[in-house]
Amino acid sequence: MIFTPIKSMKVYEQVIEQIENMIMDGTLKKGDKLPSERELVERLQVSRTSIREALRALQVMGLIESKQGEGNFIRLNFDESLFQPLSIMFMLQGGNPEEIMEVRKLIEVETASVAAVKINEEQLESLRKLSDAFKISEDENVNAKFDKQFHYEIAQAAGNFLIINILNAMSSLMDSFLKGARKKILVNHENLKALAEQHIRIYQALKSHDPEMASREMNRHLDFTNAYIKKNM
Amino acid sequence: MIFTPIKSMKVYEQVIEQIENMIMDGTLKKGDKLPSERELVERLQVSRTSIREALRALQVMGLIESKQGEGNFIRLNFDESLFQPLSIMFMLQGGNPEEIMEVRKLIEVETASVAAVKINEEQLESLRKLSDAFKISEDENVNAKFDKQFHYEIAQAAGNFLIINILNAMSSLMDSFLKGARKKILVNHENLKALAEQHIRIYQALKSHDPEMASREMNRHLDFTNAYIKKNM
Repeated sequence: MIFTPIKSMKVYEQVIEQIENMIMDGTLKKGDKLPSERELVERLQVSRTSIREALRALQVMGLIESKQGEGNFIRLNFDESLFQPLSIMFMLQGGNPEEIMEVRKLIEVETASVAAVKINEEQLESLRKLSDAFKISEDENVNAKFDKQFHYEIAQAAGNFLIINILNAMSSLMDSFLKGARKKILVNHENLKALAEQHIRIYQALKSHDPEMASREMNRHLDFTNAYIKKNM
Repeated sequence: MIFTPIKSMKVYEQVIEQIENMIMDGTLKKGDKLPSERELVERLQVSRTSIREALRALQVMGLIESKQGEGNFIRLNFDESLFQPLSIMFMLQGGNPEEIMEVRKLIEVETASVAAVKINEEQLESLRKLSDAFKISEDENVNAKFDKQFHYEIAQAAGNFLIINILNAMSSLMDSFLKGARKKILVNHENLKALAEQHIRIYQALKSHDPEMASREMNRHLDFTNAYIKKNM
């Protein structure tokens, strides 16, 4: 006979579970307004404190957002929500920044190959504009944004929500753990020229809808940036 | 002149931020005990309600755990913490279960290649035992566990904390979204035989420390299981 210890669930945890279940079964959708605190108290027959604790927790998790005077809503945009816990766990586990680069490369190289098959004309046009803008600008903060956007749009073209989320999380991790080194690469004029050329080659591979060429060019690009970041860590 | 809107931060958010910062700068480590609620009230000069809201949120995020009568501790094990928010966001974004399989394959194929280089004798021995056990058992629940463990230990051998976390999250997503289909594969006797052989081939590739063979065998294995799951979704 196998007994498993009985876990007592606190009231606020039960409130969270009910809300999560309503999301999982489709009753609550993106942008939906939650019932007011008072309504939740009545419907769930628990104290206002428990309701408030549950709502706070859901806010911190990034699942709902509270709008002043309007109430609580299921969030529309989750791009950043995964980052905070991942970043803290990464720190607690004694993670090594090189692991971030390893994962990023592993995912982006494959993503480029998927994107080469799926990318449409509009997405290609946007990538062309971004790589042109990157070539012209000499401001490292502006270039950092163009660079991020370039990689983000390739992930979007690959059309997999999980990949976009994982890459966003990796990008935020790199920002916190490798900020200095990541920016340094964009200050040097020689590097900028090399990076701009690499972006254009990636763009051309995507435009030719050539998966192998796209992953090869992305691989080369990330080997270049990772080597530079490691040297400057 | 660029103005950015000033975000008002609620008291409980400031409490969370202080605790998160203490983790990020290394003051708080895994397993450490947090000060008591009363002590936090005194040190941070805020209400007990705000402290309690912050602690609840950190518990729900999976960052701290509260032990009856002992207080709050930074958690030791985060393997499951990322899953709940990811799963809910996946649902809200209208994610397609095929995306989970795509990401899993993308990561595991590369992970097998990294593991082939890094794996040690002890890890190989454990994988050998797991694939033998999988071959002998005919209970699908037991086999599901052996299968998960087999893949988990390969990720461990690759030695990247982020990869382990991402794969755990994908595995949990598959459990919630593809439970039926994933178990079905383990009921059929023919499949079991094929899977057992695939595991042994992966093991042999790792034992030969051959990265290309390892990723090829992992690729073949996941194409087989993904095709079966898709047919039975």
